[in-house]
Formats: sequence, C-alpha cells, structure tokens
Amino acid sequence: MAKYCFGIDVGGTTVKCGLFTVEGELLDKWEIKTRTEDGGSFILPDVAETIQNKMKEREIEDIQVKGVGVGVPGPVNSNGEIPCAVNLNWGSKNIEIELSMLTGFAVKAGNDANVAALGEMWKGGGEGKRNLIMATLGTGVGGGIIVNGKMVVGAHGAGGEIGHAVVNVEETMHCNCGNAGCLEQYASATGIARMAKMELEEYGKYTVLRKEEHISAKSVIDAYKSGDDLAAQIMERFAKYLGSALAGFSCVVDPDIIVIGGGVSKAGDVLTEVIGKYYRQYAFSACKDTPIVLARLGNDAGIYGAAKMILDEA
Amino acid sequence: MAKYCFGIDVGGTTVKCGLFTVEGELLDKWEIKTRTEDGGSFILPDVAETIQNKMKEREIEDIQVKGVGVGVPGPVNSNGEIPCAVNLNWGSKNIEIELSMLTGFAVKAGNDANVAALGEMWKGGGEGKRNLIMATLGTGVGGGIIVNGKMVVGAHGAGGEIGHAVVNVEETMHCNCGNAGCLEQYASATGIARMAKMELEEYGKYTVLRKEEHISAKSVIDAYKSGDDLAAQIMERFAKYLGSALAGFSCVVDPDIIVIGGGVSKAGDVLTEVIGKYYRQYAFSACKDTPIVLARLGNDAGIYGAAKMILDEA
Repeated sequence: MAKYCFGIDVGGTTVKCGLFTVEGELLDKWEIKTRTEDGGSFILPDVAETIQNKMKEREIEDIQVKGVGVGVPGPVNSNGEIPCAVNLNWGSKNIEIELSMLTGFAVKAGNDANVAALGEMWKGGGEGKRNLIMATLGTGVGGGIIVNGKMVVGAHGAGGEIGHAVVNVEETMHCNCGNAGCLEQYASATGIARMAKMELEEYGKYTVLRKEEHISAKSVIDAYKSGDDLAAQIMERFAKYLGSALAGFSCVVDPDIIVIGGGVSKAGDVLTEVIGKYYRQYAFSACKDTPIVLARLGNDAGIYGAAKMILDEA
Repeated sequence: MAKYCFGIDVGGTTVKCGLFTVEGELLDKWEIKTRTEDGGSFILPDVAETIQNKMKEREIEDIQVKGVGVGVPGPVNSNGEIPCAVNLNWGSKNIEIELSMLTGFAVKAGNDANVAALGEMWKGGGEGKRNLIMATLGTGVGGGIIVNGKMVVGAHGAGGEIGHAVVNVEETMHCNCGNAGCLEQYASATGIARMAKMELEEYGKYTVLRKEEHISAKSVIDAYKSGDDLAAQIMERFAKYLGSALAGFSCVVDPDIIVIGGGVSKAGDVLTEVIGKYYRQYAFSACKDTPIVLARLGNDAGIYGAAKMILDEA
C-alpha cells in the first residue's frame, strides 16, 4: 500500500523537494541545485537521485511510494510534454516519461504556476475550495486556474497565463512577450516600479519616493503604507488594472475564491483591500462577493501542488 | 437499455425540444410555447407533458429513455438550482428535482449559453474539440466555456458570463448590469448600433449609414461589406474590443477553438476575419493560432447541448 509521495518544484536556480504522506502531511523538505548546464540534461537525473537518497535515508520501499509530482517553469501539456523551458535550457521533452524511467515511479508533470495554484487550493489560501484563480505577482505575473479541483492546462499548456491578458489596448510600451498592454506591465513588481518611475517624472509635489535611489515595488508599497500621495496614486492604478482584470477572469470561470501570491503579496492585507475595491467595482453582480485572499504557502506552494497532482492520479 | 434522450432549451417565448438517440442523432425537433404567467409555474409541467406526448406518438417506453437535459436562461449551479430566471418569471427552484419528479427521468440542467457552447463542441463549430470558448453575440453578449469536455459552471453559475468582462475602464456609460465598460457594450448587436449612432454624429464625411432610418448591427455590417468607411471604423472598434477580450480569455483557459455564434454571426466570414486580426495582435504567443470559427448549429445548439449534458451523466 502506497504511504508516501514526492512533490518536486523545479526552478531556475534550485529544485525544491517535499516528501509527503498520501494524506497530505509534509514530512520533510529540502533543496538541491538546478544544474542548467549541458541543456539541462542533469536536472531530471538529479531529481531521481535525490528521491532515491531520501528513500534510503528514511528506509522507504519502492512499493510504499505512490509517485512523483513535478512542477516546471514552462508550458506543460496534459501528456507531460513541454516544447521548451528557457530557464532550464530545455528543449522539447516528455517530463513524465523521462522521470518515470529514471525513478520507476508514476510521474505527473505540470506548469509551476498552475501547480502552485493547486497547492494553494489544497493546503493554502484556497483550502476547502474547488474553483480558484491564483495570481502570482513577482518579477512577472503568473497564474493558475482551478476548475472542479483540477488545473486548467489548456490546449497549449498556456492555461492560467493571466499576466499576458491585455488590460490596456492603448498601451504603446511593449511587454517582454512582445505584445503591448499586458496585465504584467502594471501588476508585477517590475510593473509597479516602472509606473512609479514614470509618474515621478511628471509629479510636482513632495513624495518620499523622490529620495529613493532605486525605486522598487517594495519602496512604493512602503510609501503607500506611510500615506504617501504619489505611492497611493500608483497603487490605485495597479489595483484598477488588476482588480478589473480579475473581475473579467471571474466572468470566465466564476471562482469560489481568488488567491494573491508572489513577492508583492508580502505587502499583506493592504494589498487585497485595494485590489478588492476595484474588483468589486467591476465584477459581475453574481461574483461581487468572491473573497480575495493572500496565499499562505509561500515557496512551498509548488511542492504541495506537485504532491496533490500525483495523489489525484487514479 | 436506454436508446433515447431529450434535449430541451427553455427560452422566454418558446421551449425548443429535441428527441435524440443516445448516439447523438437528432430524430425529431419541435417547439411549445413558454407560458410565463403565474410565476412560470406551467413551464416544467408543459415540458413533462410534451415529452410524454412525444413518447406516446413514437411508442417509446420509459426504460428506453436515458433522461432529459434542459437549458434555461439563468445561473444554474452544479446541483441544478437556480436563484431566479427573470425571463421565465421564476424565483428560486431546483430544476433537476422538479422536472425529475414530473417525468420520472434523470434530469440535468444548465445555463442556456453554457449548454449551447456544449452543443457547439459536440456537433457544431467546435466538433472534435474538448476545450472551447463560445461567444454569443446577440442583443447581449453571452458565452460558454468548455474545459476538458465539461461546461465551466462556476461558484455561482456565472461561468461563461463573458459579456460582463470589463474591456474599457474609462467608459462612463453604463451597461444593463449596472457596471460600465463591459464587453457587451461594444460587441453585442445593440453595442454595434450604439457605437454607430454615436460615431455618426461626429462624422463629417459621406456614409451610407446616414440614409438609414434605424441603424442596426445588420445595417452596419452590410455597409461594412459594401466598403463604407464609417462602418469599417465601427467594426474595427468592435473587433478590437472583442478580439483583445478573447485573447485575454485565452490566457485564462487556453482553448482549442473559439466559436462565434448569435445573430451577429450571420455576418459570416468577414466577422471572424476582423475579430481574428485583433485576436492575433493581442493573444499570448502560445495561443496566437487558436482558430476562430462560426457556430454551426444556430438555434439548435441548445437542444444538442442539453442532450449532451444528460448523455455525459454516468
């Protein structure tokens, strides 16, 4: 009888690993380095090795392992195939088949942002819910959509890529993706800093931000909390784009809950309050009361979601 | 062994009814009047009666019937409950329990726009696909989302209510829903006519639209096809809002295909061409080639989708 499973979250610099019971208790977590050299060819063998080492250390037998869930930074389709993963130097491969051959275990793979959303649904900010939108506000804006307890992977593994939804058709500056007017240009940490730098140039009044040598999302949010008018103006603009976009996504999937994660979410409740103000302004009547909450699992969301993926497999 | 099922599409003026084989062949279709008087209390008994009459006419036994699928104009949740259906004069009720008690058959109920999307996936413009966005452009803008072959119902039965996604946060005119800047204000037949009337006032040059007594979406589309400059300007604006919104929705669910239905879709291929131009401009790279096609089932989409709902039940 299977008693354990592994949840693996492959990032560009480290691989986060978790050993879970099949009931969902995290027994152990650790990290290994992500070796991206040689086309990332060491990554999956390193994962297989660290799993085997952990099993030896804890005297776990093969038969006791349900399988391995793995999240990776790239568009994984429902068969575990990925066309490329830039941060890992990977070209096209089937992660499930490769890692399954290396470990001998069943493997289920998914996009890291989608997997993190599944983790937050299972044991985090969306615990107990079955339909969820997660927005991860970091360097970029990632996301994951859960419908009826399952990740929305989509036709090209691009389900939940909400950072690249257009929110401003008048925008002339380009997003990293090549389009213009993407949500990511306003709602990421980079976007908040960019808006602050632009608005500071035009702003004639006193602001604490003028003293900052390097304006970051954190400095804007700190200034906002201290009552700075320019910072408030920037955060209102951020929240108007993000809140109205989330309201639009709610018209698509009508979630039970919206979870906000990523580095920007460290701002705390002031963040969900200002996003919620605009969300409720623009949300369709049936969805106006949908709760907007902070993510709870931080960097562990990926290993939790990865474990949940393999536990959900028949 | 069940050989037949019924697909029922309840509208504000008529109830469309279909008798299908369990293989999905439409054997017969007919309509009855929707009696909305007395709080719509006759509607489900009338549906039960017309089903029984059809069974007598065709000598179908109870045991040969798999069940009844029914689409209604309102937010049906996954248990078949609806809080209200304005066009039917209905308050809160459980459609599945009521119609099941009246007929003795298993009943599955859904929102009419979601059910139509399921029908188009099954036997229409999205045939053979499992992930689909359908936009229905009529008096308003309705929609339905299919993920892994199933309708996205959502937490409040508001899944697929894409007409009320905000596409213009600067809009000052209000939508029927009470918000401002909804997709429906630009992409419905009403929205096209509204934009035309507004732009005509400002337009100094010749246009065939100035001769029209009552400007409708049809007159704008006809003028567009004949090469009228103002009509082109309006249709480009329509398509920019709709195409960029669909691109955003694709970032959420990454569909295999996008299906355009409703009265406006009678315009034909010129419509999907102009929408596609803006869709591709704003779509995330992975989704740029997602096909945009016309709906094929017309008014029968609802009965097909309703039949599919009950056939999908275990």
